[in-house]
Amino acid sequence: MRVNAYAAPAAAEPLAPTTIERREVGPGDVLIRIEYAGICHSDIHTVNGDWGPQPYPLVPGHEIVGIVEQAGPGVTRHRVGDRVGVGCMVNSCGRCANCQGGDEQYCSQGMVPTYAGVDRDGTTTQGGYSTHVVVDAEYVLSVPEGLDAAAAAPLLCAGITTYAPLRRWGAGPGRKVAVVGLGGLGHMAVKIAHALGAEVTVLSQSLKKQEDGLRLGAGDYRATSDPGTFTDLAGRFDLIVNTVSADLDVNAYLGLLTVDGAMVNVGVAPSPLAVDGSLLLGGRRVLTASMIGGIALTQEMLDFCAEHGIGADVEIVSAEQINEAYQRVLASDVRYRFVIDAATFG
Amino acid sequence: MRVNAYAAPAAAEPLAPTTIERREVGPGDVLIRIEYAGICHSDIHTVNGDWGPQPYPLVPGHEIVGIVEQAGPGVTRHRVGDRVGVGCMVNSCGRCANCQGGDEQYCSQGMVPTYAGVDRDGTTTQGGYSTHVVVDAEYVLSVPEGLDAAAAAPLLCAGITTYAPLRRWGAGPGRKVAVVGLGGLGHMAVKIAHALGAEVTVLSQSLKKQEDGLRLGAGDYRATSDPGTFTDLAGRFDLIVNTVSADLDVNAYLGLLTVDGAMVNVGVAPSPLAVDGSLLLGGRRVLTASMIGGIALTQEMLDFCAEHGIGADVEIVSAEQINEAYQRVLASDVRYRFVIDAATFG
Repeated sequence: MRVNAYAAPAAAEPLAPTTIERREVGPGDVLIRIEYAGICHSDIHTVNGDWGPQPYPLVPGHEIVGIVEQAGPGVTRHRVGDRVGVGCMVNSCGRCANCQGGDEQYCSQGMVPTYAGVDRDGTTTQGGYSTHVVVDAEYVLSVPEGLDAAAAAPLLCAGITTYAPLRRWGAGPGRKVAVVGLGGLGHMAVKIAHALGAEVTVLSQSLKKQEDGLRLGAGDYRATSDPGTFTDLAGRFDLIVNTVSADLDVNAYLGLLTVDGAMVNVGVAPSPLAVDGSLLLGGRRVLTASMIGGIALTQEMLDFCAEHGIGADVEIVSAEQINEAYQRVLASDVRYRFVIDAATFG
Repeated sequence: MRVNAYAAPAAAEPLAPTTIERREVGPGDVLIRIEYAGICHSDIHTVNGDWGPQPYPLVPGHEIVGIVEQAGPGVTRHRVGDRVGVGCMVNSCGRCANCQGGDEQYCSQGMVPTYAGVDRDGTTTQGGYSTHVVVDAEYVLSVPEGLDAAAAAPLLCAGITTYAPLRRWGAGPGRKVAVVGLGGLGHMAVKIAHALGAEVTVLSQSLKKQEDGLRLGAGDYRATSDPGTFTDLAGRFDLIVNTVSADLDVNAYLGLLTVDGAMVNVGVAPSPLAVDGSLLLGGRRVLTASMIGGIALTQEMLDFCAEHGIGADVEIVSAEQINEAYQRVLASDVRYRFVIDAATFG
């Protein structure tokens, strides 16, 4: 079937309206009428070619919420009319130890990304900036009632990306969590860590968004441009979730961790991390990273967010505003996630 | 009381016989007649001044086994005639969260090292290359029957240094553990990991000690000078315990970890670790470090070693051989730990 979409025709060119082919709804597939698609910074990096050559025309979008319009043979997980979500992956081998362990994103054969990937049927995947998408039902999440559809879309990437390390490294009552950066990922990290019961501090370059941070659930908000922050907070945190993918002084942050504290990067900075080994040894500190989350954990996150009334803070844009929204993302001029109203794809 | 000892008179000078003052046995103290003192690479670094200025004359030695000769008022933990051990620390504040949590080595006021430190009574600590030592009984371990006294001495540093990360990061049945370097620490790591039920691989520069490694409990032994090692073993290990304090290519080792695998350094290399962040993200891998262990865990380790018949492989030397032994340690010419017979201090 032919559907409307917005695609990048080539690297670094503005996105433009087009039509793309979606595969027939096969066994195990669902057809989703997309309601909203979030704009993730990764979309911009990918279409720009920052992460290497891509298959163009390229339809980005991996924060998808919509309604099941058709379910293929054998689908029991979702029914027509259900509100569902699709995140950063649409397939994986399903058989390797990582897939079997619920970490499909670490599939040993490589997970199939929602766009710019090669699906297991050999076709190139195209993302959510579109009216419809066909996805293997096992990679489709249930969006619980009570979650606003637009606010839920960013949970499929920004939500799970922050929920996964917060859960894994024990954010909860009595634990002190720092969130580095208050953007799309950071604002989700603050909301989720707060809902988990942790004591949350935002570490941001300036105090510009301090009011927002406190409203989102942080108990403290410090400017990293102030060297006093790093002396005041030395040895304070059990967990630092670093949502900044730019280079930063990793040792300054490691010094903020308590014994057994962990710093988790949810992205990759351009340069290698020049880690002072004595900071690790001097507090049995952990440096690690985390990439989205498996399907079961993503469902757990959605259920958790519904239970706690958590959605992203979104600004809804129309299809024709996508390129302008990209510029604003690059300028950090969004509080805190753009979501495209998929009805405007026509 | 005045006791015989061997001390470094100044940085980089050979150790020589001397006498030192040990404090009176006060409340809570025990007087230990030392039987054996291990020679740890740290002793050499410290007396050489590699780690900064030191108080000379300096008596090293923090792998001490001996017999309680006198117990001060209030001591219930140990009795006259008991075989006991002293490791790398002889005091700490006892009240901070880390001490209360059993991590006295991370005391927020600083633990008191067994030598070259300032004890809580203001005196400079002097180590185990001596006939006797007086130590707060709370920092003295029980050496279980069945452990050979000489072979037990290195457990107090090399044993706990490797046992702690092996326990913390889940070495056990079904888990694949690599030990980098087969020296004093590495040979203990192999024995302990094997006894814990893990599948052990030694990663050593060459295959020179392969026979030893397999005898000590490794199932596999690979040369890191062979680039094939790093391709063959990619993604294999749940845990890497790195006992090498020289600079090495941390990314080559991170690539050997499975999803959620951890690399634990038990020392600090001279240069910062240039970590490729994508190796952390691409497998949720952990880079961390670990420094000795708390008193309770050290006792657990001694009990575990007694139960499993584990001691260090030692070569017993006399006091007058210490300087020669130091040269041999620097030349990696020891299998695997020198232990000084304290009777030879005269």
